[in-house]
Amino acid sequence: MPDTYVLVHGAWHTGAEIEAVADHMRKAGHTAHCPTLAGNRPGDDRATTGLEDAIASAVRYIEEKDLTEVRLAGHSYGGMVISGVADRIAQRLKRLVYINAFVPLDGESLNDMVPPHYVAMFDAIAGANGNAVTLPFEVWREAFINDADLALAQAAYDKLNPHAYRTFTDKISLKQPLAALALGKSYVNCQQDIALPHSLPWHPRLSERLGLFRLVECPGSHEMFFSNPARLAQAILEAGRD
Amino acid sequence: MPDTYVLVHGAWHTGAEIEAVADHMRKAGHTAHCPTLAGNRPGDDRATTGLEDAIASAVRYIEEKDLTEVRLAGHSYGGMVISGVADRIAQRLKRLVYINAFVPLDGESLNDMVPPHYVAMFDAIAGANGNAVTLPFEVWREAFINDADLALAQAAYDKLNPHAYRTFTDKISLKQPLAALALGKSYVNCQQDIALPHSLPWHPRLSERLGLFRLVECPGSHEMFFSNPARLAQAILEAGRD
Amino acid sequence: MPDTYVLVHGAWHTGAEIEAVADHMRKAGHTAHCPTLAGNRPGDDRATTGLEDAIASAVRYIEEKDLTEVRLAGHSYGGMVISGVADRIAQRLKRLVYINAFVPLDGESLNDMVPPHYVAMFDAIAGANGNAVTLPFEVWREAFINDADLALAQAAYDKLNPHAYRTFTDKISLKQPLAALALGKSYVNCQQDIALPHSLPWHPRLSERLGLFRLVECPGSHEMFFSNPARLAQAILEAGRD
Repeated sequence: MPDTYVLVHGAWHTGAEIEAVADHMRKAGHTAHCPTLAGNRPGDDRATTGLEDAIASAVRYIEEKDLTEVRLAGHSYGGMVISGVADRIAQRLKRLVYINAFVPLDGESLNDMVPPHYVAMFDAIAGANGNAVTLPFEVWREAFINDADLALAQAAYDKLNPHAYRTFTDKISLKQPLAALALGKSYVNCQQDIALPHSLPWHPRLSERLGLFRLVECPGSHEMFFSNPARLAQAILEAGRD
Repeated sequence: MPDTYVLVHGAWHTGAEIEAVADHMRKAGHTAHCPTLAGNRPGDDRATTGLEDAIASAVRYIEEKDLTEVRLAGHSYGGMVISGVADRIAQRLKRLVYINAFVPLDGESLNDMVPPHYVAMFDAIAGANGNAVTLPFEVWREAFINDADLALAQAAYDKLNPHAYRTFTDKISLKQPLAALALGKSYVNCQQDIALPHSLPWHPRLSERLGLFRLVECPGSHEMFFSNPARLAQAILEAGRD
Repeated sequence: MPDTYVLVHGAWHTGAEIEAVADHMRKAGHTAHCPTLAGNRPGDDRATTGLEDAIASAVRYIEEKDLTEVRLAGHSYGGMVISGVADRIAQRLKRLVYINAFVPLDGESLNDMVPPHYVAMFDAIAGANGNAVTLPFEVWREAFINDADLALAQAAYDKLNPHAYRTFTDKISLKQPLAALALGKSYVNCQQDIALPHSLPWHPRLSERLGLFRLVECPGSHEMFFSNPARLAQAILEAGRD
């Protein structure tokens, strides 16, 4: 039975970087969409695009294609976006799949969930770059894509785009807790993901905010979209199925 | 060198549901017994059967078959039972193997080790069902057998039997701490087991109550007896060997 | 591109016991040295050899062979030693690789990072053996080499040598925090390593002292040098590469 997936990318990415995972899911017989959010498209204004703009662009994508029974997956920052989408158009969704993704409470920003030294680093970079934030290569290589070799780490880094920092600092507005939504919820935890330190981890700290949820784990870093798309696709399908 | 195993099932199960694992252990050359505890047999009175009855039925099984040098393994609720058996007839045992199982202190009940929202759910269900507790399918599917597909989750659920709730609320009586028993102790941790939330986990929270113990881990959910019996059998054998 | 590794053994070991891992690394095209530290060589005085002696012997090894761009890996107690080496001759090093190894702060001893019941056990054994510490077989078998069968556990145990206890009690002197050193840093975490209890774990408790670091994990116990040298070699290479 083919399922319909919408995969929402993380910060610094576009839909193009997650097409490799989507292709593996398509080979397994499913439909997979990879929209690029407002704020990460070539012409978007990084200085002014905010979290609501990004959420609205994902809602618009789903409505314009008239998608229903959607299994909506978000990676990292994409967790902020799918949380907002679920709050707005839950009736079009079947299940939420967080992939080492942020799970916000009402009134929280992404920056509220990361360690203080990240916020300080982001503030400094965005302050010097017109409110667009980038990631130093050393951090990317060691803490985001620790399972790749240097050549792949570099090639993947070269594809990233400057990210609208307001989407990290804007507080999300949710009408009810995500745990209360009458949708399936899953969390994919890539076990060597230290993009968030394991003393302040993705799982179970953020995953358990979903209330009753399904855990799926796989070996890999935060950037399995590059380092192991086949294995990540398998995990997403195990998380997203009924 | 063939070893003798007695495998004690968890709540809602009988010995029949763990025969698939036992078969893999037998193929590896060992003897494996799968008794069904008092309280889970067809005619047992779910309203009145308590923890001591279940422990006594396992003791009786081992004594009637005159088993010695037993490697006694318990799954989940079965950890309460093997702890009681070890307290009564340690001289017949060689090693205890806890498989994502409860490790009680003297005077503790199973319910003392689970999160409050489980106790509230169990209380409500047992209150409405003559003190027999069952598990809602949604909880089973998402948190107990998260590594299976829906068809297997449903087929396994259909085999479960209502469980005598007194075995969850009765306090166990132990003459000495389990860590003090002169037996080998092992803990098998199935890594994606969120039957207990990972913020209040099986391991190391409960495993370390064993004092010096051997850790064996494998990928899988709380219900690998259904979802991956071959892999679980391998883990039990690595845990149970000398 | 061949890299140069120096592998520093843990307590009770010599370089000989890690040659199997080094051989796998050599087969992958790299150079790997396995010196034996002062305090673990046949004639060394276990009563008087201290942590500074061990560090100095590793520094001398690297200087005498005039090694540069060294990827310096330490296992367990070896983490104390490579931390001291990095403090003394950072200019000869490229990256530090901790393999379930101690990461000290300035002024800390190894014993400051282990649970009190280990210190009590070590004190008693060293007190009765002229300040040389050994490990009871039962602790070795259950908590150090839990992934091996009994025959391998015994064969490996027979190769261990009494360890100079002063290297556990001496405080290390570091001119600056390890996190501040301008070197790459990696942590290899063997996931079933309960040589330190998982309630007081290697990772992330000690690994995060490295500041920005690369995490590599693999299944196995504290003693994969014996139980799975091929898999450990792979992990070290993923940790040690640029």
